[in-house]
Amino acid sequence: MSEIIIMKELLSENKKLAEEYRALYKSKNVLMVNIMGAPGAGKTTFLKAVTEALKDRGIDSAIIEGDLYSSIDADDFNERGIRASQINTCGECHLDAAVIKEGYDKLSFENGVVFVENVGNLICPAEFDLGESVKIVCASVPEGDDKPFKYVPMFSYVDAVVLTKCDLKEAVGFDTDNFKKGLSAISDAPVFEVSLGKDPERSGVEKIVDYILEKRG
Amino acid sequence: MSEIIIMKELLSENKKLAEEYRALYKSKNVLMVNIMGAPGAGKTTFLKAVTEALKDRGIDSAIIEGDLYSSIDADDFNERGIRASQINTCGECHLDAAVIKEGYDKLSFENGVVFVENVGNLICPAEFDLGESVKIVCASVPEGDDKPFKYVPMFSYVDAVVLTKCDLKEAVGFDTDNFKKGLSAISDAPVFEVSLGKDPERSGVEKIVDYILEKRG
Repeated sequence: MSEIIIMKELLSENKKLAEEYRALYKSKNVLMVNIMGAPGAGKTTFLKAVTEALKDRGIDSAIIEGDLYSSIDADDFNERGIRASQINTCGECHLDAAVIKEGYDKLSFENGVVFVENVGNLICPAEFDLGESVKIVCASVPEGDDKPFKYVPMFSYVDAVVLTKCDLKEAVGFDTDNFKKGLSAISDAPVFEVSLGKDPERSGVEKIVDYILEKRG
Repeated sequence: MSEIIIMKELLSENKKLAEEYRALYKSKNVLMVNIMGAPGAGKTTFLKAVTEALKDRGIDSAIIEGDLYSSIDADDFNERGIRASQINTCGECHLDAAVIKEGYDKLSFENGVVFVENVGNLICPAEFDLGESVKIVCASVPEGDDKPFKYVPMFSYVDAVVLTKCDLKEAVGFDTDNFKKGLSAISDAPVFEVSLGKDPERSGVEKIVDYILEKRG
């Protein structure tokens, strides 16, 4: 059997599971949000800010952390009082619906928002439905404004884009118009800009929280 | 047949081709260098600086550009007078020995250095031998100093690490010692630091050129 046929079968089995789990998460009043992005795009820092902002609005949240190896980020969230379960893919380049369900079961979580922090990868995760209801990509300013032109499947797959590290725009010569031009050619996803470094500017985070709560309904 | 068995067969076939092509490139007096890294790690900017520095030393070089879509980078190199051939993977997350051979044939190049700019991905390319003689990963400062802890296969696979965008160390709070600690636990690859942004500092590039020429023998 060829690689392509095996891959199609895998994706079709994953899709079935994802549909089943999506219904389950909804029945538990959980909004599952899949956060993707390149290595170092700022996914973890973004999640710290968003879970804090949700807490301020009285909404519970939890994290399923995906990493090839290590539990650095899950440990950090747990220390901050945010429930987090760690999935190690042992070198695999993506998560799938089945491992997310295992991560969810470990959390014992209902009534709130669960964020999946996907493996740092702008390519493979776009193919795998995790049973989420919202798909977000974090793209960081230092990665460059040409990324939507080059990573078409990911940017056309997501519901929303979080542009991170916006305080570095001038230092790296980032052209926001060019980034949005590339994106708008393949997607109508809204772009939320954040700067969460040394002098965090959180108004973008509040807008994303509005967006997430709107999706929660 | 399972995904794992198919994958093992694919990798074993690829390895055989890679060995054959490695011998071919050597017979043409070509040093093939595989440049990997996350999206936006600064691979293209690094290659522009290195090919220029090689030219100044009288060494010819050429580029095989790997991208999911677009030919932005290959066009740019050709305009600069560096021969470049474009490979579009149409969504695939890695290159392999066979497509590199096709890219090489299009270049009609002998006696010098050919750089492969791999697809922006810190995971999948580490599994695929391209027939290269030197494997380099570009890791950018804004990605964070924890990357060698998290992307173990890539950092343990490469011969050398180029740490890019070093001028942003202070702005993003990058801990060089922590980065090197993570790396040295899994690899003895040397680290070359470069800053090629607004005020380029090229002494790091000259050291990498020394390293590459030493490998060329």
